[in-house]
Amino acid sequence: MRHALRQDRPAAEDPAALRRPGRPRTADDEAIAGAVLQALVERGYDGMTVEDVARRAGVGRATLYRRWPTKTAMVIDALGRGRFPPPEDPDSGDARADFLSLLRTVQATFQREHHVMRALQLEVARHPEIGVALSRDFVPERLDVLIGVLGRAAAGGLLRAPSDVELLAQVGPALIWQHLALLTNEPDPDLPQRITDLIFTDRPEPRRRNR
Amino acid sequence: MRHALRQDRPAAEDPAALRRPGRPRTADDEAIAGAVLQALVERGYDGMTVEDVARRAGVGRATLYRRWPTKTAMVIDALGRGRFPPPEDPDSGDARADFLSLLRTVQATFQREHHVMRALQLEVARHPEIGVALSRDFVPERLDVLIGVLGRAAAGGLLRAPSDVELLAQVGPALIWQHLALLTNEPDPDLPQRITDLIFTDRPEPRRRNR
Repeated sequence: MRHALRQDRPAAEDPAALRRPGRPRTADDEAIAGAVLQALVERGYDGMTVEDVARRAGVGRATLYRRWPTKTAMVIDALGRGRFPPPEDPDSGDARADFLSLLRTVQATFQREHHVMRALQLEVARHPEIGVALSRDFVPERLDVLIGVLGRAAAGGLLRAPSDVELLAQVGPALIWQHLALLTNEPDPDLPQRITDLIFTDRPEPRRRNR
Repeated sequence: MRHALRQDRPAAEDPAALRRPGRPRTADDEAIAGAVLQALVERGYDGMTVEDVARRAGVGRATLYRRWPTKTAMVIDALGRGRFPPPEDPDSGDARADFLSLLRTVQATFQREHHVMRALQLEVARHPEIGVALSRDFVPERLDVLIGVLGRAAAGGLLRAPSDVELLAQVGPALIWQHLALLTNEPDPDLPQRITDLIFTDRPEPRRRNR
């Protein structure tokens, strides 16, 4: 029924291919993820329909129903799959440099996806289950990368506040998002470095100078 | 022309009273501020009209045109006047306690006004001039209260990262907002204390123990 759109996506032309087990799903998954987030930004969570997402992605509705039990699950999965991959830990041996590099990735991602993030912030107010799903199925995997780097930094005595690394890991993303979302759409190029300086000690040695 | 609505607000019944210099403006200002923010949340920045705000506030359109040169100026003024008054610095002599108390106020304000803040975050993407106005005419006055407390704490040697107090002052609001806006509408009661512990040293003395 969607021949006009299917033609744009040769890989999905054979409907049977969509259901073949073991078939690499990446192309479809990416198309669906893109469609879900586009629909979310344009129509909002309440306005987006499975019909609409299926049409945008060039897949059948059954594919969506089969793959996700709820609309929330579909949105969260689309976020993780498409445009918010967990950042990669450089693990270069220099925790401070790794942290700075991760913050720059976070800033670039937030900048690129700010429309999706703004839409999400709006929807969490209307649909608390989205916030619950984000807290459970989305944020931890991404925060863990930052927590890992800060854990190494803490072990090396590089952190000013090593006792609550979990909260500390949220400081960078929170400051970057607040700056971007509330004050300007332009990322502040100095911000990742300033945040790193705030969190890491001035000297790499664990022993601190007394004043 | 708005007699039906004017009748609800006896103070504004005499149009001349609106223009009388020296007249205490508080009641009108509050009504206008409430109307502006309500219109913003319900209709969005593009959808809100001076006509609509005037009707909701029970004042004449001329009053609004006379008072604010632009819609952005009206919104920013409404924010500051109505529901986001600059928090008061307790200045109790205990900077740590003052900071904690301010963070609790910030959390309560963000929780109460989250609809307005979500709407603003959405509008900044569409209307960069709102972000500019927030950065220039709204945020600094509020941040200054936190910067003041942290400045006293830095002088007392109570901060882990005393070198960038301006950025440090943004950490609390950013973490509180991120938690509230993205993850859940329920404020985390432990968060202000955890943030304080992250920012303040463990001991009130400036001299630190070496490990």
